[in-house]
Amino acid sequence: MNNEALKRKLYIVIFESDTPAGKAFDILLICCILFSVSIVILETVPGLPTYLATPFIILEYVFTGFFTFEYLTRIYCSPHPKKYIFSFFGIIDLLATLPLYLVFLVPSLRHLLIIRAFRLIRVFRVFKLFNFLMEGQMLLRALRQSSKKIAVFFFFVVILVTSIGTLMYMIEGSRPDSQFDNIPNSIYWAIVTMTTVGYGDITPVTPMGKMLSAFVMLLGYTIIAVPTGIVSVSMMKEYRRQQNVECPNCHKSGHEETAAYCKYCGTKLNEHQSHPS
Amino acid sequence: MNNEALKRKLYIVIFESDTPAGKAFDILLICCILFSVSIVILETVPGLPTYLATPFIILEYVFTGFFTFEYLTRIYCSPHPKKYIFSFFGIIDLLATLPLYLVFLVPSLRHLLIIRAFRLIRVFRVFKLFNFLMEGQMLLRALRQSSKKIAVFFFFVVILVTSIGTLMYMIEGSRPDSQFDNIPNSIYWAIVTMTTVGYGDITPVTPMGKMLSAFVMLLGYTIIAVPTGIVSVSMMKEYRRQQNVECPNCHKSGHEETAAYCKYCGTKLNEHQSHPS
Amino acid sequence: MNNEALKRKLYIVIFESDTPAGKAFDILLICCILFSVSIVILETVPGLPTYLATPFIILEYVFTGFFTFEYLTRIYCSPHPKKYIFSFFGIIDLLATLPLYLVFLVPSLRHLLIIRAFRLIRVFRVFKLFNFLMEGQMLLRALRQSSKKIAVFFFFVVILVTSIGTLMYMIEGSRPDSQFDNIPNSIYWAIVTMTTVGYGDITPVTPMGKMLSAFVMLLGYTIIAVPTGIVSVSMMKEYRRQQNVECPNCHKSGHEETAAYCKYCGTKLNEHQSHPS
Amino acid sequence: MNNEALKRKLYIVIFESDTPAGKAFDILLICCILFSVSIVILETVPGLPTYLATPFIILEYVFTGFFTFEYLTRIYCSPHPKKYIFSFFGIIDLLATLPLYLVFLVPSLRHLLIIRAFRLIRVFRVFKLFNFLMEGQMLLRALRQSSKKIAVFFFFVVILVTSIGTLMYMIEGSRPDSQFDNIPNSIYWAIVTMTTVGYGDITPVTPMGKMLSAFVMLLGYTIIAVPTGIVSVSMMKEYRRQQNVECPNCHKSGHEETAAYCKYCGTKLNEHQSHPS
Repeated sequence: MNNEALKRKLYIVIFESDTPAGKAFDILLICCILFSVSIVILETVPGLPTYLATPFIILEYVFTGFFTFEYLTRIYCSPHPKKYIFSFFGIIDLLATLPLYLVFLVPSLRHLLIIRAFRLIRVFRVFKLFNFLMEGQMLLRALRQSSKKIAVFFFFVVILVTSIGTLMYMIEGSRPDSQFDNIPNSIYWAIVTMTTVGYGDITPVTPMGKMLSAFVMLLGYTIIAVPTGIVSVSMMKEYRRQQNVECPNCHKSGHEETAAYCKYCGTKLNEHQSHPS
Repeated sequence: MNNEALKRKLYIVIFESDTPAGKAFDILLICCILFSVSIVILETVPGLPTYLATPFIILEYVFTGFFTFEYLTRIYCSPHPKKYIFSFFGIIDLLATLPLYLVFLVPSLRHLLIIRAFRLIRVFRVFKLFNFLMEGQMLLRALRQSSKKIAVFFFFVVILVTSIGTLMYMIEGSRPDSQFDNIPNSIYWAIVTMTTVGYGDITPVTPMGKMLSAFVMLLGYTIIAVPTGIVSVSMMKEYRRQQNVECPNCHKSGHEETAAYCKYCGTKLNEHQSHPS
Repeated sequence: MNNEALKRKLYIVIFESDTPAGKAFDILLICCILFSVSIVILETVPGLPTYLATPFIILEYVFTGFFTFEYLTRIYCSPHPKKYIFSFFGIIDLLATLPLYLVFLVPSLRHLLIIRAFRLIRVFRVFKLFNFLMEGQMLLRALRQSSKKIAVFFFFVVILVTSIGTLMYMIEGSRPDSQFDNIPNSIYWAIVTMTTVGYGDITPVTPMGKMLSAFVMLLGYTIIAVPTGIVSVSMMKEYRRQQNVECPNCHKSGHEETAAYCKYCGTKLNEHQSHPS
Repeated sequence: MNNEALKRKLYIVIFESDTPAGKAFDILLICCILFSVSIVILETVPGLPTYLATPFIILEYVFTGFFTFEYLTRIYCSPHPKKYIFSFFGIIDLLATLPLYLVFLVPSLRHLLIIRAFRLIRVFRVFKLFNFLMEGQMLLRALRQSSKKIAVFFFFVVILVTSIGTLMYMIEGSRPDSQFDNIPNSIYWAIVTMTTVGYGDITPVTPMGKMLSAFVMLLGYTIIAVPTGIVSVSMMKEYRRQQNVECPNCHKSGHEETAAYCKYCGTKLNEHQSHPS
């Protein structure tokens, strides 16, 4: 019984953010995340004073210890531990602590601590930014709806850049000191060009190569319209669907995009659920 | 009484542009702004004849004096001085004069005089380009409506480029003379690549780095579709909302996008207000 | 009378392309344009055999003579010479002949002969590609409708890049050998970055400069969504308007996008006019 | 008769993928394609151990032999050989074997074996990814609908880059060591800039050149909105058309986007046909 009471109390503090203690804990957590991510980034900057190296390493262990303790407590006090462990946030929380333990095996893995940055997504829950969460969920729904179209699109883009890269290798590859000295490099060039990134580290020099290059650019210029069109249409659909949300009580629709309650009778609309932990 | 009459007269000349004097003043003001902005830009060009240096500095003080005098007069003759001071244009007007006074403290601040360029927004009011103003306001409304979605989007983009930058640092950072020599630089590279800018000042050289790079480009190619989709849908909504503007007199809707008066009964539509000073 | 008959005959051959003679003349004209444009481009290529130089110059004079003669004949046989002279095609036709005459004044103007390329727009009329013309006109209408919004957008972009360029000059301009050595160069950099072109000829090197740069890129990433949104909405509107074209005879609407005749009663729809010469 | 039975059996194995044998054959085929494409790419990588060269060449002949045999068998067992030969997949299948036979004439053609990658499109059929196929077909329909608009758009882009390239050649071409040393190079630069690729291999150095360059970038920034707008509107239309698919039996519409059967009476909707071969 005492155990159960402790669990419930811990649950309220760690998982919820409505009580003062819960909110304080969440804000502390966010500060720790921001601070530990900053350390991971800063310790790679060359001009850093050497006397900071040791404190940084100590802090890293302290934060990892704290996050590990927090992760274990979350599992302990969660009413459905398995559900938490395999939820999106559960996996992120685990990945945010693991890298430091793996350092003993592969030292360079330490920088993976940056995964902690993803824990910051909690910020929306803590500061009651539910509207933002809903916008984010609407974006995700729109992207998920169009994921098949985008997958097909990428499949063709991959075949296209492979072919264009090979063609470019055939055109420019035989020149001495050519930058297109193998097909993987040429495919890399084709992707750089088609996506309009255009680093300029690999560029054609022959007239034929420049012509193919110009053609690829104009193609990429048009093709970039396809994912944009797909996403725009998905969002438009999502927006219409949302306008048609029907109140479960009075059966009226046409609610505001971010409405949580029916504007006619005040019933909670089950379309916009709050964020699942 | 005499004081009040002077105030009203000044108000008409400075704030309004319907009278010949008001219009003349506004045109003079716009010329001064254009001229002073040109001086700020030109005086940094290396090949400039040296005999121009002194006149340029004198002109800068003359313009700043004029703008300061104008700013004080605006405060003096405004019926609600506080409202003016804290309005968008009030703050711009203040910032357009301050930098020269701060030169005595920090010399390089002089170039901030460029803020004057923002005063040019008045040009729309002076030349009665109300239609343009309305288009601008419609754009702003559409952007404001989608600001939450865009904020969520940017939050994820920031987490994403941080993670990708760190991953790239782990892949290429250990090579001698690597350009990815610290995580902030790698994050900068991730932003340059994801936004399809692609300077080419930092580029991957290892096969693994090129593969990650190609992946980031294709990701950026799709992700660029998200803000475009958001803004397109917002504009579409804004356009529909505008078509539904109801005349306050005859309650008919379906007016033209830029209509200021009801086309059925001539009543002023309160949807499109003229620009607030 | 004889004169009038000649005029009419010439008009049919030169302006129209329904008779065999008219079509033959138009195809000859298009070949001449393509050939003369190719010469203008080719004669600048370094590796060209020298024995081609003289024939190229002679051909240029021959083509210019032919185009001049054609231009004068068009004026002669046009029923409304003034209307032709000041029409879009009339001005293009004039500009396509002038540069060679100006060579005696300014030799480098010869390359302006490239303006002839615009005469190729006739190709749509000659080959009865009316559908393409209509699509082009629909595009133009959509762009014209959104021209005010785009103008306002560009006004703000110009103020923005001026301010960002000046800020960058303040951050990096004082370093020795800085590429941001004057404000016009920095504004040029701001435009290169904001439009996601990213040549990489001018890049920031200080941490502060890189941070501003990253911010400008993310800004440009969002701002690029605005013209796309504007144009998408315009096209959607244009498409809806077209669906609402009402037949002047049977007053039914809902015609196909490229329909020239009412599908219910066969009356010509006055929405899609053929190209005005 | 025996011959016919063999034909039918072969047809089921090679063309269909519903029987275990058919599916096994298709999976074997996809593995062979992936493997042979990987060889074409890998054998160009410089650091490859030399002892792999001979096995790679042998494997290439083995795969080409297998694909040739498969192609001939497909012709043999197809009920309409001509229809297969001139279908999209028939031509791809032929092109996937030809290059190696042409090596005796032109050795460098070997790399065209990469065309095999296009055979991978079968992957959708094999794994019953019909939904993906339908999405792909919807994308293609939307692109085909907008092909005329895009063609007109490209016609103008080509004229525009030709003119801009020539103008740039006139501005910067006369400088010693200029990168704009001939008009084709300048046109290539104009395309690189307008499409926002921005390699940076050719960049303007004079103030006039930079001004033209900035103008072209801002133009390209707006013009990129046109194909995006075209494709977005096409997709929106396609989506609406699909919602209006009428069931041939019960004449009800409003089906899901990817529905193959009427949701009211179960009749097959003839809008979404399965992939032709």
